[in-house]
Formats: sequence, structure tokens, C-alpha cells
Amino acid sequence: MPEFLYGHWAVIEAIRSERRQLNALMIHERAEKRGTVGEAMTMAEERKLPIQRVQRRILDDLANSGNHQGLVLRVGPYPYCDLEDILSLAARRGEKPFILLLDLLKDPQNVGSLIRVSDAVGVHGIIIQERRSVAVTPAVVNASSGAVEHIQVAQVTNLVNAMKQLKQEDIWLVGLDVGANIPPLDKTDLNMALGLVMGSEGEGLRRLVRDTCDLLLTLPMRGEVGSLNVATAGAIALYRAWSARGWEGWAHA
Amino acid sequence: MPEFLYGHWAVIEAIRSERRQLNALMIHERAEKRGTVGEAMTMAEERKLPIQRVQRRILDDLANSGNHQGLVLRVGPYPYCDLEDILSLAARRGEKPFILLLDLLKDPQNVGSLIRVSDAVGVHGIIIQERRSVAVTPAVVNASSGAVEHIQVAQVTNLVNAMKQLKQEDIWLVGLDVGANIPPLDKTDLNMALGLVMGSEGEGLRRLVRDTCDLLLTLPMRGEVGSLNVATAGAIALYRAWSARGWEGWAHA
Repeated sequence: MPEFLYGHWAVIEAIRSERRQLNALMIHERAEKRGTVGEAMTMAEERKLPIQRVQRRILDDLANSGNHQGLVLRVGPYPYCDLEDILSLAARRGEKPFILLLDLLKDPQNVGSLIRVSDAVGVHGIIIQERRSVAVTPAVVNASSGAVEHIQVAQVTNLVNAMKQLKQEDIWLVGLDVGANIPPLDKTDLNMALGLVMGSEGEGLRRLVRDTCDLLLTLPMRGEVGSLNVATAGAIALYRAWSARGWEGWAHA
Repeated sequence: MPEFLYGHWAVIEAIRSERRQLNALMIHERAEKRGTVGEAMTMAEERKLPIQRVQRRILDDLANSGNHQGLVLRVGPYPYCDLEDILSLAARRGEKPFILLLDLLKDPQNVGSLIRVSDAVGVHGIIIQERRSVAVTPAVVNASSGAVEHIQVAQVTNLVNAMKQLKQEDIWLVGLDVGANIPPLDKTDLNMALGLVMGSEGEGLRRLVRDTCDLLLTLPMRGEVGSLNVATAGAIALYRAWSARGWEGWAHA
């Protein structure tokens, strides 16, 4: 089944990473070759990828009314990796594993945003469960600004089983949770082989997932509204962990 | 000029904070009194606020096609504060000033999200410039989940002048910027009288704003996509600063 990626960065990063089968670039029938559309056209030409000019309503349809910015890319399915690929990447880089696990997140915007931040901090891979969770859909690719085309994502049958496998590899599973007796994020030195586990919007961590974590930490909050979006909370925790690693892999470090 | 706030949390927090003139709660003509709509109705009744039942398309219109979730609140204008109010709140709480300054941000979603995080970390006030920047519109109230109805926002004629005033109060202005020679976020102990300055989407800090900062810090990034949304970057910096303050004001601290 072909998929239709949409939006500037989703399309450009998918072409650039060349991890998927690339079928065709679709642009508006009267688009000029300039700006980001021009950039995508040049990239397509260099790879001898067919460029199809179509009506706006076709782009709208293919993008499922998402904000396509005049660019749709017909591609093969997303190339999921497996747990071993994630661990090998860490080994190849000579870094302690740094993994993000998402427990049944539902909102493509949140998942995309977490993937974008994961790319920025050098996470070796993201683990999601196959059922009852968002997969890497075109909406997620778009929300990740194309970052998911570069990072590794493993889709597992059962998240708890994957967690147990990681524990056997001496990876510490830290769940971000809410509750009065949970220590704050900075109480533990996160410079360790780490799997950060984020719960879903509204529901948080499932009980069995929570019980499988080695450690729970919380993001303190004061103020009147008293809740943060899971993508914001995850970004803060991921940065905290990367900072504990001394910004390992940062070009200016 | 009345304004029309929309969405569950925007409406509920505006009623709860009672900072604006409250004119009427508008709900769908066939809405039942239950869930969040019911909660808003009870709050309105307790305050003898008129409840008007209208057609869905009227709600849609008043919410400017925003996601109103069946709730619109007709209110007076947003009660901006001034710089002095922000400094007095810090003094009343016995805390070093903690202020967020936004340089010409354009996207209501980003501004709302930054306001929500500011509330969560106990920022004493947010400063925005009157012209060429997003104001506290109903879209911002919605994106902040109503947090802006509790936090103080000052709208100033000129951001650079406001920065100079803060400097006279011995507040350190730290700009978040991008560049090879800028030290990372954790290089400075942010436990100080702090004004965090965030630049706009795409443009970053204006030159004069940057030059008026006492210090520039950067959020490190690695990976392939290499940029973060301003709301994400700001959330990370705000949490870093609050953590340096030892989670001051946190109920569980």
C-alpha cells in the first residue's frame, strides 16, 4: 500500500533519508520551481523520481486535509526497525542506550513532536506498541517535521515484553508519572542506559507498564492549571537526560 | 468590545479566575447539563451569569472556527497588568523575579503553550510587545488551556525599553539563541532574578533585543532535523530555570 506524505519537511526529509521506496513527487499543477517546492523538485530530479502535477483538490485529498503546503510524496511503507537495531546503534556510536518508549499515545501531533525532540537529543530509537497506539502515519511524519524519516522506530506487539527485554540488557526504565510520593525529575542522575517511558494523553501509564518501570519520576508543577501536554513533558525529560550525558554528540560540545 | 472565549478550559478558567467582566455563557441549544458543559453551567449559575442556548453555527462563528467544544463565553477585554505588578507578585511571594519575555511571537498556539508552561513553573509574569506580536486573543486563551486567565501578562509599547527597566531592577536578561559560540543552557546557574527572552518563530531574537540581553544561552541540538519549535525550546528553558530554584513553590517539595 502506498502512503502519501505531505508538507515541506516531511517530503524533503523522506527524500533525503532515502529509507523508503520513493514513487513520485506530486505538486500543484501551476507550481513554480522555487522555494521549498523548488527544493523538493530538484531533489526529485536528481533521483530521477517522477514529478506529477495535479489539481489542488487532489493534493488536499491525498493529504487527508492536512497542511500539505503544495507537496505530496507517494512512498512505500515506513521502515520500522526492531529492538536489536536500536541497541546496535547505541553500540556503534559508543553511547549508553537512550530510548523513548510510548505507552499507547493517541495524538499524531504529540507523537510527532516527541519524535522531533528525540532526534534533537540523539535518542537511539523509539518504541511504540502495534495495537491501540498511533503508528508512524503521514500525520506523524508531518508533525515530526520529517525527523521520523531519520530516527529508528520499533513497533512491538507488547510494550511490557519489550520493557522486560530491555531490562535484560541492563537498561533502566524510568517512567514519567504524576503523584504525590514520586520524586522529581532531577532526583536521579539520568546519565545511564535509559529507557524513558511516557504514558498516554489523559490516561498516563498503564498499571502493568508502571509496575515494570525500575523507577518513577515526576515533573513538578505549581500554578493554577496544573497539567502539561505529554509532548511538552517528554521534551523536558528528554533534554534533562541528554544534559546529564553532557550533551554527548553535540557539534559544539 | 466583548470577546468570545471558547473551549472547555478557556471558559472554565475564565469563570473561575473572575478577572474579566463575565457577560454570558453560550452553549448549544440542545446541550445537556453534564460533563464539562455541565460544570461550566453550574459555575455560571452560582455567579448568576446568563446562560444562552444558541445554534451550533453561532458557536462556530463566535469561536472563529476554533475548537469550542460546545462552550463560548462572552467576556470583557483581557486585563493586562504592568511591569510593576509582575515585580510586586515576586516580592509578595518572597521569590526572586522569574519573568518570560516574548519577542514578536506570531503563533497563538506557541504563545498559549508557553503561557501554560509559565503557569506550571510559577513565572510571575509574561511580557509581550503591543505591536507586531500576538496579543492575548481567544485563540491564545484556548491554547493556554485557560492558564492566561490566572497568570499576569504585560503588554508593553517597546520590548527593549521594558528590558532596560528590568535591568535597573537587577534582573538578569537571558536570551535563548542559536549559534556556534553560545554556551549551552546548563552553563549558568539560572537561580537568579531572571528574565528569559524568547525570539520569534523563524526570525529568533531581533538584534537590539539580543544586544540588550545580559547573557545568551543556547539549547544544544544534534540529529538530522536540527530545530525545535519555540514553545518546546521555551518549555525546556523554563523548567531548567525552575529546577535551579529547587522547584520553589511546588506542593510536594
